Amino acid sequence: MEVNFSNIKVIGFDADDTLWVNETYFREAEEKFAGLLEGYETKNKIDQELFLVEIKNLELYGYGIKGFMLSMIETALDLSNNKVSQATLMEILNLGKEMINKPVELLDGVEGVLRQLSDRYRLIVLTKGDLLDQERKLQRSGLSKYFHHVEVLSDKKEDNYSNLLEHLEIKKDEFLMIGNSLKSDVLPLINIGSRAVHIPFHTTWKHEEVPFEDKFNGHLTLSRISEILKYLH
Amino acid sequence: MEVNFSNIKVIGFDADDTLWVNETYFREAEEKFAGLLEGYETKNKIDQELFLVEIKNLELYGYGIKGFMLSMIETALDLSNNKVSQATLMEILNLGKEMINKPVELLDGVEGVLRQLSDRYRLIVLTKGDLLDQERKLQRSGLSKYFHHVEVLSDKKEDNYSNLLEHLEIKKDEFLMIGNSLKSDVLPLINIGSRAVHIPFHTTWKHEEVPFEDKFNGHLTLSRISEILKYLH
Repeated sequence: MEVNFSNIKVIGFDADDTLWVNETYFREAEEKFAGLLEGYETKNKIDQELFLVEIKNLELYGYGIKGFMLSMIETALDLSNNKVSQATLMEILNLGKEMINKPVELLDGVEGVLRQLSDRYRLIVLTKGDLLDQERKLQRSGLSKYFHHVEVLSDKKEDNYSNLLEHLEIKKDEFLMIGNSLKSDVLPLINIGSRAVHIPFHTTWKHEEVPFEDKFNGHLTLSRISEILKYLH
Repeated sequence: MEVNFSNIKVIGFDADDTLWVNETYFREAEEKFAGLLEGYETKNKIDQELFLVEIKNLELYGYGIKGFMLSMIETALDLSNNKVSQATLMEILNLGKEMINKPVELLDGVEGVLRQLSDRYRLIVLTKGDLLDQERKLQRSGLSKYFHHVEVLSDKKEDNYSNLLEHLEIKKDEFLMIGNSLKSDVLPLINIGSRAVHIPFHTTWKHEEVPFEDKFNGHLTLSRISEILKYLH
């Protein structure tokens, strides 16, 4: 595959599961949640119900841990026909608080890549999710110094990207986005005329999955972030 | 009081309780919450406990309705010694969802002021709270067209303002902030060398209150937003 990034002046990085571990913590919380409710339903059914409640609430709550906590509580009440114990509900609250307090675990090679690229490009962080959570993680990560700008978006659709690039006065063909989600970090960029690199993370939230036929869009896919240095001189 | 705003080029507006009603909905929710728990404690004690739980959780959850919902659930479990019924907890969730879905009620005179000032000044919105909630309210308000920029901050302290003004390339002495909270919209601005106008709303969250001696800082206080037009030509 012939790749030419000579136009690129600004590089946007997704944060969760691109710079640091995130989805793994949601999977762990879902495991514990299913464990707390195992008297009421099978693990499979509990997973499915939680997912349905999350999707139903997504428009109201948006992305992030607080919405996830509220959806866990709602699912627990629903699934148990209001029989789940109050002590279990308190455990669910504590499960969420633990997630918020998790240390930030950088993915392999991230800091080296940022250090090298920050000399030659303007780097920005583009995440969705909870504003406070994302600011806290960036601060704990020690990576702030590499970035010119940090933007937390309520969603990552074509319009969100177009508006942001316009606001930051970045030309679409000079912008490259790097992230783990085809749906949020790759396809919308390709569609607005920017560039994108996909670095899959081993775990993807079901809501971020895209149909197989949408996966071929002329973007570059890498298995680890350090490989990007071969393409950006 | 002699007031000279001839330097001012950019005006920042707080949103909640400056452009539209907000705190009133929290007070109403607190009333209903106390009603749901009236078998367990006095209304006064319930209010106090909820406030303590909110403040304890503020660092984790930040500002906004989702954090408020989680704190109501925690308070209900705590106050009732885990005896609050599951049906009541579901009602608390629904109380919060209703808050998120409230229509936006503009305060008197807001639209006229924005229409007139937007010809002569760069107007921006500076709010704290939940990103998605604030974007939704701005969209529903129909006021987006008057603003050059909207920034949702995780907090409104001196550093938050200084960083933002630097990022937006606004000189401190050319910036005027208008808002209902002395603590968040007025005092930090005076302290960094910008200007501020205080327009008190009839209801203020206890956490936003400041000691009496901090209330005198040479800022202008108005009783309604339309009075600002007398000072900005």
